[in-house]
Amino acid sequence: MRGLNHLVTDPESAVLKVLSGRRKVSIGISGFGSSGYPKIIPKTIAELYDEGRLSTRIALLTGASAYQVDQILGERNLVERRYPYQYSPVMRELINSGEVEFYDFHLGEWPQYLRSGFLSSKIGSLDLAVIEAVYVDEKGIVPSMSVGAVDAFVSEAREVIVEVNPDIPEELIGVHDIYSPGVPPNREPIPVRDVSDRIGKDRLSVPEGKIAAIVESHGHDRGGDVGEPGPVERRIADNLLGFLEREIDEGRVPERMLPIESGVGTVQDAVMSALAEAGIRGLRAWTEVAQDSFYKMMAAGEMEYISATSLMLSPKGREFFFSNLRDFRERTVLRPQSVTNDWEVIRRLGVIAMNTAVEVDIYGFVNSTHIMGTHVINGIGGSGDFARAAYMSIFITPSTRKDGRISCIVPMVSHVDHIDHDVDVVVTEQGVCDLRGKSPRERAREIIENCAHPDYRDQLLEYFERAIREVGGHMPVLHREALSWHMRYRERGDMRAG
Amino acid sequence: MRGLNHLVTDPESAVLKVLSGRRKVSIGISGFGSSGYPKIIPKTIAELYDEGRLSTRIALLTGASAYQVDQILGERNLVERRYPYQYSPVMRELINSGEVEFYDFHLGEWPQYLRSGFLSSKIGSLDLAVIEAVYVDEKGIVPSMSVGAVDAFVSEAREVIVEVNPDIPEELIGVHDIYSPGVPPNREPIPVRDVSDRIGKDRLSVPEGKIAAIVESHGHDRGGDVGEPGPVERRIADNLLGFLEREIDEGRVPERMLPIESGVGTVQDAVMSALAEAGIRGLRAWTEVAQDSFYKMMAAGEMEYISATSLMLSPKGREFFFSNLRDFRERTVLRPQSVTNDWEVIRRLGVIAMNTAVEVDIYGFVNSTHIMGTHVINGIGGSGDFARAAYMSIFITPSTRKDGRISCIVPMVSHVDHIDHDVDVVVTEQGVCDLRGKSPRERAREIIENCAHPDYRDQLLEYFERAIREVGGHMPVLHREALSWHMRYRERGDMRAG
Repeated sequence: MRGLNHLVTDPESAVLKVLSGRRKVSIGISGFGSSGYPKIIPKTIAELYDEGRLSTRIALLTGASAYQVDQILGERNLVERRYPYQYSPVMRELINSGEVEFYDFHLGEWPQYLRSGFLSSKIGSLDLAVIEAVYVDEKGIVPSMSVGAVDAFVSEAREVIVEVNPDIPEELIGVHDIYSPGVPPNREPIPVRDVSDRIGKDRLSVPEGKIAAIVESHGHDRGGDVGEPGPVERRIADNLLGFLEREIDEGRVPERMLPIESGVGTVQDAVMSALAEAGIRGLRAWTEVAQDSFYKMMAAGEMEYISATSLMLSPKGREFFFSNLRDFRERTVLRPQSVTNDWEVIRRLGVIAMNTAVEVDIYGFVNSTHIMGTHVINGIGGSGDFARAAYMSIFITPSTRKDGRISCIVPMVSHVDHIDHDVDVVVTEQGVCDLRGKSPRERAREIIENCAHPDYRDQLLEYFERAIREVGGHMPVLHREALSWHMRYRERGDMRAG
Repeated sequence: MRGLNHLVTDPESAVLKVLSGRRKVSIGISGFGSSGYPKIIPKTIAELYDEGRLSTRIALLTGASAYQVDQILGERNLVERRYPYQYSPVMRELINSGEVEFYDFHLGEWPQYLRSGFLSSKIGSLDLAVIEAVYVDEKGIVPSMSVGAVDAFVSEAREVIVEVNPDIPEELIGVHDIYSPGVPPNREPIPVRDVSDRIGKDRLSVPEGKIAAIVESHGHDRGGDVGEPGPVERRIADNLLGFLEREIDEGRVPERMLPIESGVGTVQDAVMSALAEAGIRGLRAWTEVAQDSFYKMMAAGEMEYISATSLMLSPKGREFFFSNLRDFRERTVLRPQSVTNDWEVIRRLGVIAMNTAVEVDIYGFVNSTHIMGTHVINGIGGSGDFARAAYMSIFITPSTRKDGRISCIVPMVSHVDHIDHDVDVVVTEQGVCDLRGKSPRERAREIIENCAHPDYRDQLLEYFERAIREVGGHMPVLHREALSWHMRYRERGDMRAG
């Protein structure tokens, strides 16, 4: 911290220095995958509010999820706007009730939108960045367990507060690779050609004078533990593995496996384990969030390299990671989300994307964000970035939820996040549908036959054939019925007919 | 043609040599924007079929549209599959009736899908490529008025027939820039940094022995003439111009205009003219299809450079282009669609994308392909490539069609091609809605207020407010009514209530 000692202060002074008397403020905080979020400044804001010493309304910007911050500030209703992703029951409720204006957006493109001033009509310019760090000095800030959008926040904010957290080992220094793509007309090719390429610096430069305060914080990320896969998850993983093995056999996927993007979840964990067990060679992750299982695989020699923007580890997983940090740090790189989620790089590397669907329709459109089409869960996150730019885009879902009362294969999805052209393969515990090169009517028959639950197959087929007869067209739809399954669920708690 | 003289033959012999006795064949032909398609081989196939000397069923692949070829082969019902875009009344009817299996797909990604074998389950490997050329010799083929996917077709097909068309001036040699992005894991950064960068060769290399025949053909492309803008188109253009001028004033768009992608159409023509008239500096096109108006602007000193994959010119426009070819060729480059439509380059250059919507909903989702959600018009084409990767994605539409009986602003689009996150700005003759940074509910109020036709505003607002009251959520939808406007139109020919 050499040379910046005069900026060290206590959290309360830091907050009051920057926010005192302000009625509105826009704050960009570190945090992605609920990792690397500031531990003390948001808490201090909440306490000062509770004591009546602050009444600031906040536009809260993050890289992606920052669970605890959303909970703390959401409970006090301090947040007016929330961009671009969240994962918190309190914030979710505020968004769905219309109390918080939520701008859900592609994570890869998001930092450029901020830099280009595209959000200025609603948030003005960015007032403050609050960044959790392992280390800070005049040369810059070393972020902690995630990078996310901190590079954009630090460059755009008028002032920066740094939270240095000594609970995170300094051996993490060197894991980060900070490279920020320019904004057109000053954007250059992003020179990543391999998952392991380092193209930037190990820390974030900060223009002189921008750091308003440095505080000490403590504690670890809440982290994530995705649990053990059940029989349905295992069948999905087996189906997906079988599909990928055939693709390798037939030469459509190289024998040295292409880099994998894996959404967070039990099924994805099961898939990764299945790939390793099947002896698939050269597993590498080019993904947003690295989970516990990735480092288990790395320790077992099954995972060659991990490139991510966030380490979302359970307490046990974090302990394991920290205690093997000298080994793991040689094969881990944490990048800004404007690089991990950049379409240029995803497409160049040929990433195989595995994401989870809430529901899929018979033509291959995917809803991955809105329950019954209206209530957002978390946001689109990086699923669009990866599904679109991927070499191959795979969506996985159980065929039913809620003990079979919801079919995840429906006549028409109630909300579209991914259009049919961005969905190559659908996998459920029932089977696999490969959509590539097929017309909508061909896809419909295969999705119903291969992926739908037997309880719903006849109902789907009957709808589809009636749609052909009564309306026809390239993509037959009965407008009166297309969303009736969702209506039935809302009214009777069951999508089954009769 | 030096060295290849032994391959020169008549069209009938060429077709019979390759197709005789075959029951199924997959053919990739040149053609994009109904330009540069083969003039004689498809006609010869049709004639041989009429004479009962051929009975081949065809999987027909193109870059994008090849109007006459679809008409000729479609009328005889010779096409079994059609990939990935068409623009022909006959083919459209066959697709919508389910007689032709149509795989509509993003034009930029499409060549890689072919190269990766992703279409093999349905078309096997590519049997034949038929390419219209200005010139051919052992060093390669110089394509004619479009490039499209010819590079992929020539590399993937087992055999190639070249149609040399001497009606096209040889001065076109040097306009093409053939660079084919590799397939992962062998893909490199595409080194385009400016609209005018040349990164490839002026012709297409062909592996020795692949050319099965060379034939002479004659005649010009059908071409396109987009007509004069009417008052609605002019108001849309004025609204869009006003918006862009404000963006420049406020520094969100640089003063030297970013490259423009412009879909084909009267409104787009009107917009380009309006930009030029307003004195916007440095107009350059990074687009799929260059129209007549672009060269009028170039001649007037208003257009600096045109990069496209197709020159879709009217007979008059073509004459003008050819007679000024020595000048225009210095400022024109024709590239493969895997470069013009590549997300990496579009994003790097910061292209401003202007595409046409069939309908837009109150949350900003766009239908650009399916009438009433079921019957395809042409296909998604490059609209997804550009809308997603653009610096700013603008969709334009009149607020109503069919004398006001169809509202182009609806509660829910009947088909989704572009999700809300890929639509930054909506422009109608009524006004402009800037969606950036706004929550769905904020967008809904502004789209209704600014863009909907006054005849439909109350009806939309009433729906929206009831959806908030009755269902709520981040994106309130009444499933019973969301598509009722389309049902009403289907049943009564009018979307207006009452």
